[in-house]
Amino acid sequence: MTGPVVITDIARADLATADALAVHGVATVHEAMGRTGLVGPGIRPVQIGARVAGTAVTVLSWPGDNLMIHAAIEQCRDGDLLVVATTSPSSDGAFGDLFATALKTRGVRGLVTTTGVRDTADLREMGFPVWSSAVHAQGTVKATPGSVNVPVVVGGATVRPGDVVVADDDGVVVVARERAATVLAAADARVAKEAADREAYGSGAELSLDRKGLRPLLADLGVEYLTQAEYEARGDGGS
Amino acid sequence: MTGPVVITDIARADLATADALAVHGVATVHEAMGRTGLVGPGIRPVQIGARVAGTAVTVLSWPGDNLMIHAAIEQCRDGDLLVVATTSPSSDGAFGDLFATALKTRGVRGLVTTTGVRDTADLREMGFPVWSSAVHAQGTVKATPGSVNVPVVVGGATVRPGDVVVADDDGVVVVARERAATVLAAADARVAKEAADREAYGSGAELSLDRKGLRPLLADLGVEYLTQAEYEARGDGGS
Amino acid sequence: MTGPVVITDIARADLATADALAVHGVATVHEAMGRTGLVGPGIRPVQIGARVAGTAVTVLSWPGDNLMIHAAIEQCRDGDLLVVATTSPSSDGAFGDLFATALKTRGVRGLVTTTGVRDTADLREMGFPVWSSAVHAQGTVKATPGSVNVPVVVGGATVRPGDVVVADDDGVVVVARERAATVLAAADARVAKEAADREAYGSGAELSLDRKGLRPLLADLGVEYLTQAEYEARGDGGS
Amino acid sequence: MTGPVVITDIARADLATADALAVHGVATVHEAMGRTGLVGPGIRPVQIGARVAGTAVTVLSWPGDNLMIHAAIEQCRDGDLLVVATTSPSSDGAFGDLFATALKTRGVRGLVTTTGVRDTADLREMGFPVWSSAVHAQGTVKATPGSVNVPVVVGGATVRPGDVVVADDDGVVVVARERAATVLAAADARVAKEAADREAYGSGAELSLDRKGLRPLLADLGVEYLTQAEYEARGDGGS
Amino acid sequence: MTGPVVITDIARADLATADALAVHGVATVHEAMGRTGLVGPGIRPVQIGARVAGTAVTVLSWPGDNLMIHAAIEQCRDGDLLVVATTSPSSDGAFGDLFATALKTRGVRGLVTTTGVRDTADLREMGFPVWSSAVHAQGTVKATPGSVNVPVVVGGATVRPGDVVVADDDGVVVVARERAATVLAAADARVAKEAADREAYGSGAELSLDRKGLRPLLADLGVEYLTQAEYEARGDGGS
Amino acid sequence: MTGPVVITDIARADLATADALAVHGVATVHEAMGRTGLVGPGIRPVQIGARVAGTAVTVLSWPGDNLMIHAAIEQCRDGDLLVVATTSPSSDGAFGDLFATALKTRGVRGLVTTTGVRDTADLREMGFPVWSSAVHAQGTVKATPGSVNVPVVVGGATVRPGDVVVADDDGVVVVARERAATVLAAADARVAKEAADREAYGSGAELSLDRKGLRPLLADLGVEYLTQAEYEARGDGGS
Repeated sequence: MTGPVVITDIARADLATADALAVHGVATVHEAMGRTGLVGPGIRPVQIGARVAGTAVTVLSWPGDNLMIHAAIEQCRDGDLLVVATTSPSSDGAFGDLFATALKTRGVRGLVTTTGVRDTADLREMGFPVWSSAVHAQGTVKATPGSVNVPVVVGGATVRPGDVVVADDDGVVVVARERAATVLAAADARVAKEAADREAYGSGAELSLDRKGLRPLLADLGVEYLTQAEYEARGDGGS
Repeated sequence: MTGPVVITDIARADLATADALAVHGVATVHEAMGRTGLVGPGIRPVQIGARVAGTAVTVLSWPGDNLMIHAAIEQCRDGDLLVVATTSPSSDGAFGDLFATALKTRGVRGLVTTTGVRDTADLREMGFPVWSSAVHAQGTVKATPGSVNVPVVVGGATVRPGDVVVADDDGVVVVARERAATVLAAADARVAKEAADREAYGSGAELSLDRKGLRPLLADLGVEYLTQAEYEARGDGGS
Repeated sequence: MTGPVVITDIARADLATADALAVHGVATVHEAMGRTGLVGPGIRPVQIGARVAGTAVTVLSWPGDNLMIHAAIEQCRDGDLLVVATTSPSSDGAFGDLFATALKTRGVRGLVTTTGVRDTADLREMGFPVWSSAVHAQGTVKATPGSVNVPVVVGGATVRPGDVVVADDDGVVVVARERAATVLAAADARVAKEAADREAYGSGAELSLDRKGLRPLLADLGVEYLTQAEYEARGDGGS
Repeated sequence: MTGPVVITDIARADLATADALAVHGVATVHEAMGRTGLVGPGIRPVQIGARVAGTAVTVLSWPGDNLMIHAAIEQCRDGDLLVVATTSPSSDGAFGDLFATALKTRGVRGLVTTTGVRDTADLREMGFPVWSSAVHAQGTVKATPGSVNVPVVVGGATVRPGDVVVADDDGVVVVARERAATVLAAADARVAKEAADREAYGSGAELSLDRKGLRPLLADLGVEYLTQAEYEARGDGGS
Repeated sequence: MTGPVVITDIARADLATADALAVHGVATVHEAMGRTGLVGPGIRPVQIGARVAGTAVTVLSWPGDNLMIHAAIEQCRDGDLLVVATTSPSSDGAFGDLFATALKTRGVRGLVTTTGVRDTADLREMGFPVWSSAVHAQGTVKATPGSVNVPVVVGGATVRPGDVVVADDDGVVVVARERAATVLAAADARVAKEAADREAYGSGAELSLDRKGLRPLLADLGVEYLTQAEYEARGDGGS
Repeated sequence: MTGPVVITDIARADLATADALAVHGVATVHEAMGRTGLVGPGIRPVQIGARVAGTAVTVLSWPGDNLMIHAAIEQCRDGDLLVVATTSPSSDGAFGDLFATALKTRGVRGLVTTTGVRDTADLREMGFPVWSSAVHAQGTVKATPGSVNVPVVVGGATVRPGDVVVADDDGVVVVARERAATVLAAADARVAKEAADREAYGSGAELSLDRKGLRPLLADLGVEYLTQAEYEARGDGGS
């Protein structure tokens, strides 16, 4: 069995594709992937209004220990986004403004972590966007080995090194690097369709019930339209 | 037993009363109702600074399914506020900017939902206020029936169609439509009293201990005033 | 055994020391104390950007009851920070803008509470900073005795009356009043060291792996550097 | 507005119907009601193997206060089941073996409570079944008013006085007293059908895919049957 | 400031007093202490039916690290009960059957831990009782210092070395060693009183409303007794 | 991109190896894998005392929908263990005694699911072991597609079809099918070593501090041994 490793030459998704996915945002990319790839709602941004994408450099750390984040910095390059997971749940503040300073200098676009973070006022001021499970100042040690650039699970989603990670106010989504171009094409198509929907709904020209042809489905599913009087006449009592 | 229904002609509370309740805000309205009607603290705003009230159009959906929200839009009119509950807990992003666009066009004032929401950056930019249990981009399907304008339970509070729902930074409170005028009168009275309290406390003229006559109560309840030395002389040890 | 008490003449930490600790902020003070004293991540600010310190006046209340907060106000003076705990978990809105008005008039710098709070829009507008476990409008009664200025536990941290409490966007940390000067000195030293680190990392001149001498530790712990091809050749299968 | 009340002459569901519903158990009764009426999974039994039904006597208490449980005992009679909710969440041990002793003497069949309970070893030994949100020894006071026999919300389900409450290892379900006979008939029918299903599946004679005619649905929904080789040939990469 | 320490000669509460407190159990001891000292409901037994008391040997560990439990064993002697806390939340299985074997040999009566535990089938078979925050097999390392026999906070309760810890199916309570004899006397008195109450309630001779004189209190608090018809005549509508 | 699929001919781990891993149990297998592969502590058994292993047949379902479990049964054979995950969190009772009847007939050894389950009394009586996130009677529909035998994430662990899943009172661990033999060998070795440790600790012959050579590590980490008097002489104040 393999012990702790740092993988040094990962393949990365195309950065222009990542940039284009960032423009679409998390919800659209998730839909374009057939409603997959989403990190769970427990990982939240510490700032409002950021929307970024980057290629994943991954870290698997012991709880309460940030040694492997130190090791990961050297593996990061322009366009990357750091993704940190721990071997068991931890809300400790494994990441703060010194790490952000080092990463920003290397062109890293942000952090997604299953741990807590600290120095959040500084992170916001620096414009280094972070998505985390908690804000907590709890310090960490450098004592236990872990790995860099192995697959990790973050909020139920698997992130492999080099995958595209897109993050915004809605959360985080992961796109396998082999699928990035296909997903981008699907996202482009979806956006075009939604623009027409938005125009139709915003003008009041059409209801989604009609535009999406849902009235027959409601009837098929047995949904009845009743007046309040008709409903009460059925005499169910109770709620 | 009644199956899934859409009730089409609900009675609604008076909109002017709803507007007046919105001015008072959630905490005051809750107090004016004898400390009842409050939605639990798990339903939070996705924006800061909104304060709205409207008449409830209610939706009861299956988890992971937003079909009945499509059906509900048609039942909404100016002054309404959409209230969505699911038959079992769900944090999926059942609501986003396209629904908000359609609802805003119809004069709907906001959304309260036990589910998650997405497109939150857009929702904030549009000025369509939302209170939800989560922010999550997870998409939903249109496959399972539910109901529109039946009573639903949201965060432990019962909402009936046509009730007044007031929501602000503190959360959400529900006022039965039959009681709205009575509650408004009680809220008006409370606000007048609190203004005098605020003046008394802000000027330092009087402590609430005196203004509310609490000193005798403290004595009745056996609360003793001691110096640190007296306290330590009792020799309890421990905490 | 001692029943409910109000201690009237507590010893307080030096206010100038508290002020100096506030400048350093929560994360630095926590590190300067050997990574102790931190309140858990469940107590969060209701505002963004506040950073304060004060001497603790403590309250131990029954859940759903704010009587002892009324009693505590009289014990507060300029430079204090009110700390409220309940005998069992409660998210009720035991604190609102009237209490904040009274406390601000007395020079109190903020509130840390294990309960919920309400009137949060007003609190933000007044500039009275609050850290709490929830935002909830639920009203409370004045019926059950409790204590003022006894030791309380808040988010796993013990707060004694007169201790320094520092709070900012990262959370809350408690400094025993006897240790405040020692902790301040340690925090000063840490800040000086971190400024040099920040310069080194921000300029890209040095990695933390080198600056902190971590490469030998990684080797000692058995962390291997591999290429992707070398890693895959080990043939583990699975993740 | 009505303040705290004790309603003394509630209408109750037929006890023989309740007894018959108990035989079916929670899951079957919930299905027979069209998948409604279920209390959420946070209310759990403190014993294994109990299955009871009774007519609800309801209590609405202040958190940390069991005064109204004292008042409710007098309203209970043979065949009842006590249902306790609090105005805001509380895990305090508001109920223990003395209450159980008094209730058992009156023929009450069990307790469902949103609070905690204590003396659980005694409760199990007495054979008085309890469903609660927590086990916690925290004592409570008798200081704040509440109501007996008003509608309450328990785990998202509304319980009105006199409704049938069925509880077993799977949880708790509420049947409106007006619907109890109808629900019983539907449950009887369901049980008959399930017995035939169980025979078919247990003998291996038939798969549910066939017995329920689900193969065409899978095809309609686009579910493809592939070999591993065919699946991998699609070349998605990623997870 | 003091770093990590092992205190080797702690004062312990009298063991006969601890034994007598164990007979009373957690709820009674908590009441006898004026409703204080209780560990929160998140710490649960992994077995049913154990009731023990012992003198606390305390451990403060880093999350994911059980080094200090190894150090603590040597400090344990007959009649002790081991209490483990971590510097930040951890559900890791820091304790299993090998530790239990070593502790049982030394006469240690059980474990209370804020972490997880594993080998629970073995622990139950051995008859070594354990109260923990989780059952989780996650292994831990031995890499980071901590302390033995310093005060720790467990579920909101402070445990000092040598204090009496009582644990049963209801949870865990802590008695300061200086107060143990006083608490025992109060518990004895309470048990005598409750036996008479139990007789009165079990025989149906008296209601607690009468025995505790609560009827006047209900009246003072404004609780009204109404028939269903009177209640409905007030015409509130709503819930 | 691939849509919903049922993979019909998965490779499975050797069943004799799975059987041998079951004898070791979850904690030992997890340690033998270098402390990896563990499902998080939120997935708990509904029975006490079961210890099983099997080859995984995996299901990925929509929340509130059990259609794909129907499809999965046909893919199961003797020695399998069914593993169910949903695309977003769900506590619904997607599994009950009818499914268990069908699976038991096919020789399936148990169920691990991220959803809830129901009919738990029947499941225990049948001896069909289940690990789930909740017990909840909430019924589900058959309306939305999903997949059988694709990789799924359960409690943070990735399960691929054909992997060995071991489950007991401590939880659930996953062993990649390619590694099963290697892991078994490591588990055998660990058990032999632990037997000697158990003998040494149980007889009181040796402390783990000595047997594992931890005393020098404690010294290196700066852990000091002090008497209570020496500790107090350092004069830290506070806890």
